[in-house]
Amino acid sequence: MANLNLPDPAAKPRIVVVGGGFAGLNFVNRIDSHRYQVVLLDRHNYHTFAPLLYQVATAGLEAPDICGPLRKTFRGKPDFHFRMLQVHDVDPVARRVHTGAGPIDYDHLVLATGTRANFFGNTNIATHAFPLKTVPDARRLRNQIFQTLERADLTDDPAERQRLMTFLIVGGGPSGVEVAGALSELRRHVLTHDYPDTPMDQLRFVLVEGEEELLSTFSDRSSREAYRNLEEMDVELRFQTLMTDYDGRTATFRDGSTLECSTVIWGAGVTGEIIEGLSGESLERARYRIDNHLRVAGYENVYALGDVALLTNDEWPRGHPGVAQVAIQMGRRLAENLNNIARGRPTKAFRYVDKGNLAIIGRNRAVADLPRNLHFSGVPAWFVWAFVHIFYLIGFRNRLFTFLSWVGNYLTYNRAVRLVLEPTLDEELREEGVDAGNRPGLRGPATGR
Amino acid sequence: MANLNLPDPAAKPRIVVVGGGFAGLNFVNRIDSHRYQVVLLDRHNYHTFAPLLYQVATAGLEAPDICGPLRKTFRGKPDFHFRMLQVHDVDPVARRVHTGAGPIDYDHLVLATGTRANFFGNTNIATHAFPLKTVPDARRLRNQIFQTLERADLTDDPAERQRLMTFLIVGGGPSGVEVAGALSELRRHVLTHDYPDTPMDQLRFVLVEGEEELLSTFSDRSSREAYRNLEEMDVELRFQTLMTDYDGRTATFRDGSTLECSTVIWGAGVTGEIIEGLSGESLERARYRIDNHLRVAGYENVYALGDVALLTNDEWPRGHPGVAQVAIQMGRRLAENLNNIARGRPTKAFRYVDKGNLAIIGRNRAVADLPRNLHFSGVPAWFVWAFVHIFYLIGFRNRLFTFLSWVGNYLTYNRAVRLVLEPTLDEELREEGVDAGNRPGLRGPATGR
Repeated sequence: MANLNLPDPAAKPRIVVVGGGFAGLNFVNRIDSHRYQVVLLDRHNYHTFAPLLYQVATAGLEAPDICGPLRKTFRGKPDFHFRMLQVHDVDPVARRVHTGAGPIDYDHLVLATGTRANFFGNTNIATHAFPLKTVPDARRLRNQIFQTLERADLTDDPAERQRLMTFLIVGGGPSGVEVAGALSELRRHVLTHDYPDTPMDQLRFVLVEGEEELLSTFSDRSSREAYRNLEEMDVELRFQTLMTDYDGRTATFRDGSTLECSTVIWGAGVTGEIIEGLSGESLERARYRIDNHLRVAGYENVYALGDVALLTNDEWPRGHPGVAQVAIQMGRRLAENLNNIARGRPTKAFRYVDKGNLAIIGRNRAVADLPRNLHFSGVPAWFVWAFVHIFYLIGFRNRLFTFLSWVGNYLTYNRAVRLVLEPTLDEELREEGVDAGNRPGLRGPATGR
Repeated sequence: MANLNLPDPAAKPRIVVVGGGFAGLNFVNRIDSHRYQVVLLDRHNYHTFAPLLYQVATAGLEAPDICGPLRKTFRGKPDFHFRMLQVHDVDPVARRVHTGAGPIDYDHLVLATGTRANFFGNTNIATHAFPLKTVPDARRLRNQIFQTLERADLTDDPAERQRLMTFLIVGGGPSGVEVAGALSELRRHVLTHDYPDTPMDQLRFVLVEGEEELLSTFSDRSSREAYRNLEEMDVELRFQTLMTDYDGRTATFRDGSTLECSTVIWGAGVTGEIIEGLSGESLERARYRIDNHLRVAGYENVYALGDVALLTNDEWPRGHPGVAQVAIQMGRRLAENLNNIARGRPTKAFRYVDKGNLAIIGRNRAVADLPRNLHFSGVPAWFVWAFVHIFYLIGFRNRLFTFLSWVGNYLTYNRAVRLVLEPTLDEELREEGVDAGNRPGLRGPATGR
């Protein structure tokens, strides 16, 4: 029976992989598709190089620079099939996933769906905050930044202008730190020149973190470096501070204090993208529990990889960190194991090799923790970061070209900058017939329509 | 009185320019802002290099490649102020425009708002067709193309797949011809490799034109060349054919015939973007009537330039063509006239110097009509086109860099291709809670949720 235009796998087992992120990508890259039919499903037709989302959000890179088209990446891989769609649920008894376009039967199911932003049930925050998990997220945030600055430039009311020019970053992990640093550089290198009528020193970037330090998963030395760097870059830091609400204008914190701001960037929590249908026993804290052969608890032929998987052991009692290296290594290990099974060879348990942590804070500021307590900061860390990222690219045909492109764009700030390419509010409002200027507070003392 | 954060022009007259396209851009570039305060308004904060929109739509270039950020372009121009907003109407008695963010008083008003797609009152077509006038248009069309191909690749029903793979282009002017040629090349260079399960020879590109020939504003020789080229590129051409309706699935033509297609690309009519408030006498066929000093009929200090202006004379009894050269030359002439007025010197009447017509049909196919009956086609025309376009860029700081970037991207097809970066339907539907696969016809024989 034809379904989703997939060819009959004939005698080969079919592996369905859900998710083309680091885990799924590396799994597909390494699985032997002479032995298995491989079907990759993703709601996007590209792989997102997530570590650089913050660059797209702050106009340092363009979205296509960090997207690897999945069809092109695996062009030539035999019996490999990509379908762009969403998976709604899985029927593990029938061995079938149900998708937006119909069902697909599987022999092996690999769940590599990653995580999405977690707003802890606060619908206000979910509505108004800007997460940074996908390329559309990054673009929305970039448009928000520049659209807000355009609004500030035509606002006569000083209090409203200050609110527009106040940006709040929630979360002092790598994501928040990198965004804050990039915003500071944007101010310094670009914005101060483009708005002669609005002093950019009024721009405030405020980062709040619930713990006592930045980069709490990094070494103490890196945490201190990050703190020093952001302070020097005029980012305001508040520790042991939790945001409890945001209505689009005012952020409220646990201690009762408030902050008038235009934009809240959310880097403070994620939750697994769970596909329904497996038993509740297999889930814990919105992640699939897996064993060290990456099998989902209670199932023979269902596996989970990467951020959505929860593998605990003595070294990682709360599960492995949600970082690219874990996803990459899990993807590879599972593929090798399945290849070995097909060849009648033994499999190996997964063991994560921690290659360190990296965070970029500015054009010549970064912190890196490497194995054996090596530590880099400053410009050397930037290069370490660049090479490491390039090294782990798959199928970006011309790694050198990509690297040069990144470096060129990153250093020159020439492109993609400033463009409000999808003025969401104006366009939406215009289509609804509403005056884009009717938002309270945007009107100066003069009357208009 | 402060308004929109604009400084008091003091003793200088204030010129308000509405529209940062070719006409507005060239006007601002040439006007002496020591003599006048210059305020430029545009709903986007960038200038769109419209001749290359079709490249963005067919994934040959990326949107930022054809956008010139208006703030950066005029950085350093004294007493120049940009505001991103929409103008709603003008009060010529009070000498004031009303915008989305408040009113602005002017001494001189320059209307350079261009045109938008004209669907001749057919709301079905307006809803379902894809125009190509702005960067968001180009992106929407590109997403539509690739999203549709993804859908085709998972469709089991052959009739539905064929409908999805049928694209209709309405209009045989430069816009339609260029899009059709670019789509054909996309098929040949990219698509045939990316969809192993779906034969790309099923892709149909159908172009319909109401007249008897393509490029009716070009020479007969160019019209024939264009015809020959598109035929060779497997574009189906139908002449003396008018589309009268399109409901998203079926296009209907005047002769009663129909065509099942997924996408209608609209290159068949434009209408002026009129700002209300001037007398009805000043308008004709949705354009502002102007004299040869570019003044709107009946007004002293209101001018119109470019596509939205209607200047008739013996040579152009139905008005000047809506091409970039007219807009550029009008913008320059008006600026020079106003500069001369400020210096007490005489002004000159506008006289359009027709520098010819160019249309690119493929990577090594183009037609060009130049003055004195010169005619190019093929690869030389491509280079003529590239140089002419570069020559007329303003403020794209590094023209050489831009040119190399275009050439590089154009020739390698490496970037932006294939990425459904804003899967509008999926995302919208997901947010509404609707199953993205519930659209009729997209489901195969198997059931799903």
